[in-house]
Amino acid sequence: MPDRITSVSNARIRRLVELRKKARLRRETRLFLIEGTRLCADTPESFITEVYATEDWLRGASDAERARYSGFPLTIVSEEVMEKVSDTEQPQGIMCLAQMPSWTREQILGKGQESEPLLLILEDVRDPGNLGTIFRTAEAAGATGILMSRGTVDLFNPKVVRATMSAIFRMPFMICDDLCRELETLRGDGIRSYAAHLGGTRAYDELPLTGGSAFLIGNEANGLSEKLTAAADEKIIIPMAGGAESLNAAMAAGILLFEASRQRRAAVRK
Amino acid sequence: MPDRITSVSNARIRRLVELRKKARLRRETRLFLIEGTRLCADTPESFITEVYATEDWLRGASDAERARYSGFPLTIVSEEVMEKVSDTEQPQGIMCLAQMPSWTREQILGKGQESEPLLLILEDVRDPGNLGTIFRTAEAAGATGILMSRGTVDLFNPKVVRATMSAIFRMPFMICDDLCRELETLRGDGIRSYAAHLGGTRAYDELPLTGGSAFLIGNEANGLSEKLTAAADEKIIIPMAGGAESLNAAMAAGILLFEASRQRRAAVRK
Repeated sequence: MPDRITSVSNARIRRLVELRKKARLRRETRLFLIEGTRLCADTPESFITEVYATEDWLRGASDAERARYSGFPLTIVSEEVMEKVSDTEQPQGIMCLAQMPSWTREQILGKGQESEPLLLILEDVRDPGNLGTIFRTAEAAGATGILMSRGTVDLFNPKVVRATMSAIFRMPFMICDDLCRELETLRGDGIRSYAAHLGGTRAYDELPLTGGSAFLIGNEANGLSEKLTAAADEKIIIPMAGGAESLNAAMAAGILLFEASRQRRAAVRK
Repeated sequence: MPDRITSVSNARIRRLVELRKKARLRRETRLFLIEGTRLCADTPESFITEVYATEDWLRGASDAERARYSGFPLTIVSEEVMEKVSDTEQPQGIMCLAQMPSWTREQILGKGQESEPLLLILEDVRDPGNLGTIFRTAEAAGATGILMSRGTVDLFNPKVVRATMSAIFRMPFMICDDLCRELETLRGDGIRSYAAHLGGTRAYDELPLTGGSAFLIGNEANGLSEKLTAAADEKIIIPMAGGAESLNAAMAAGILLFEASRQRRAAVRK
């Protein structure tokens, strides 16, 4: 029989609420929350440690869904408890406690894959929706990995998790203390780094991107730091028309990565 | 001397709150609100009808800012009033009432411009951030215009306005009753329409996009309707790697438009 919790002051529930709110507790426990029917369904089973669902959700679940979650410790919670833990205003009624993925440097460089390394390097991206969209888009573009500064918004923040559309489990990433030093290491691996910058000379679509490449994306308000920009191999621009002065950070990342993806597909067709 | 309002129940203030909340009132009056130092500064003067600011904002304003707004009816409001009207939790202290721009079909097709028509056609895009980002990105990519279904989120919703980063005043657009009929009209103008669709055959980067082109973008949850997809000239795909099943609607729009932009710049270089 599954556990039942109807009190919002239950110690386990209070801990889930803390996990939703506190990046530090997530880091210490290496656990985070996944919410909603679709996201939970797309979470690889090896990452799931506990499942929380409402009676209502279970009643409406398919046999396949019930079978999928029967292998995990299941707790039935009241609607009130679900609302207390949830990050959304109208929770769907299911939530998983999941372990954080962790990746090796080899995985981030895509070693063993056919394609050359294709990386994003994020310096202090602060908007949860942007970071999540960047993960989702990077996966679609075939990026091999993402490096992030410590000042980047926490990847396991519920809003980020939601926006990744499960790419959080599939896109290799690493949080770095010193991105400038990482650029040096990448250079040693034969990977060229490009900083989008108003003072750039070459347009992004004039670069040869079939070899190992890394794009730097900066903070939404302040862009890339001068120090990191100077450490990149080349300053580049995304040519813009009209009165536009900049692109959204996630959009810039997507346009750069899909240009690399386009060149790589074109090279295969030749 | 400027007017002063300190009461949140003042009739003019109540009307501003209604304008923030109600798309219908905005449509009837053809007025909407612009919030914040940067967005107000980027609003062309010809669109501004009234200015509302707090004492604090005015004290911190530059001479250039004061000069800019001195030509308009200025009302000084209390912090409490500003918070009541504002769509943000921490209002910056300045707000403009602005007239909606309106555009002709010729402007949407970029007649008189050097470049061929480049359009986006949006069917029921619902997320305010997505619609705003689409406008911002479309301008940067050199799109000539955007057509929207009536089911698209209101362009003058404060969240959309904010995300456009003032492109709302520069990007020609039209709200349409029947997008299928619009596609026919565009066909008559020599503009080819492309629907991103899982059943598409050609990749977006294999299309010739230097001629008049229009990309169809559908609803975030349901994609494009079958009817509109069938009315397009061609179904296309954005090739995706990994476990990714789709892209965010704004991201898909940006990748398609910047591919057109890339091809057009490459054609000029030749």
